[in-house]
Amino acid sequence: MSNLSVVELPVLNQPDEAVAPCCPPLNERPLSAEEAERTAKMFKALGDPVRLRLFSLVASHEGGEACVCDISDVGVSQPTVSHHLKKLKDAGLLSSERRGTWVYYRVEPSVLAAMGQLLTTAAR
Amino acid sequence: MSNLSVVELPVLNQPDEAVAPCCPPLNERPLSAEEAERTAKMFKALGDPVRLRLFSLVASHEGGEACVCDISDVGVSQPTVSHHLKKLKDAGLLSSERRGTWVYYRVEPSVLAAMGQLLTTAAR
Repeated sequence: MSNLSVVELPVLNQPDEAVAPCCPPLNERPLSAEEAERTAKMFKALGDPVRLRLFSLVASHEGGEACVCDISDVGVSQPTVSHHLKKLKDAGLLSSERRGTWVYYRVEPSVLAAMGQLLTTAAR
Repeated sequence: MSNLSVVELPVLNQPDEAVAPCCPPLNERPLSAEEAERTAKMFKALGDPVRLRLFSLVASHEGGEACVCDISDVGVSQPTVSHHLKKLKDAGLLSSERRGTWVYYRVEPSVLAAMGQLLTTAAR
């Protein structure tokens, strides 16, 4: 319990708390209240300009991962960067791994692919 | 000016205020502050459970469109439904057209497809 940030992928490994995509394409049938609750969390996480920018920084960084130490040009403090990265992780969009001094974040491909499909299919 | 709700697609037709997708796939390069600002608006619009549910109701409704008159089972009042539909429209995700008494909303396929691609490509 000494370092909570080391816990990995709690969202994907614990179905009870899952916010991972659960749902049919948006144009197939209306989402239930419960499905909407879970899926909205992920959209909300990307609905903040700074978080979206940080997300694209991690996603486009060499090797598909980045730590706070790699991020310097978004105009917010390092604690704020850490706060937003944690929110993205809590939403199931990033996973994290501690290596030495730093926690490295990477995108969760399966969650993103499902979100993308949700939207792309709806746009047919 | 007697009925503002008849105005159609202001977002898509006025580049100065555009919130339409502008941006490369999220894993290609970091978004600029301005790109993130524009794109986050759309994610934010879908980041509310009731709005997301309403969006799926419109997207999955017969003919790909729906009016407030078609929506009755989301547990919020009709004025609240109208409020949320307008927010989705303001974000560029829905377009609207008045026919007789009702305003009909339909999904904006191009905007959604671009959002989907943004995410799907990032998940490669």
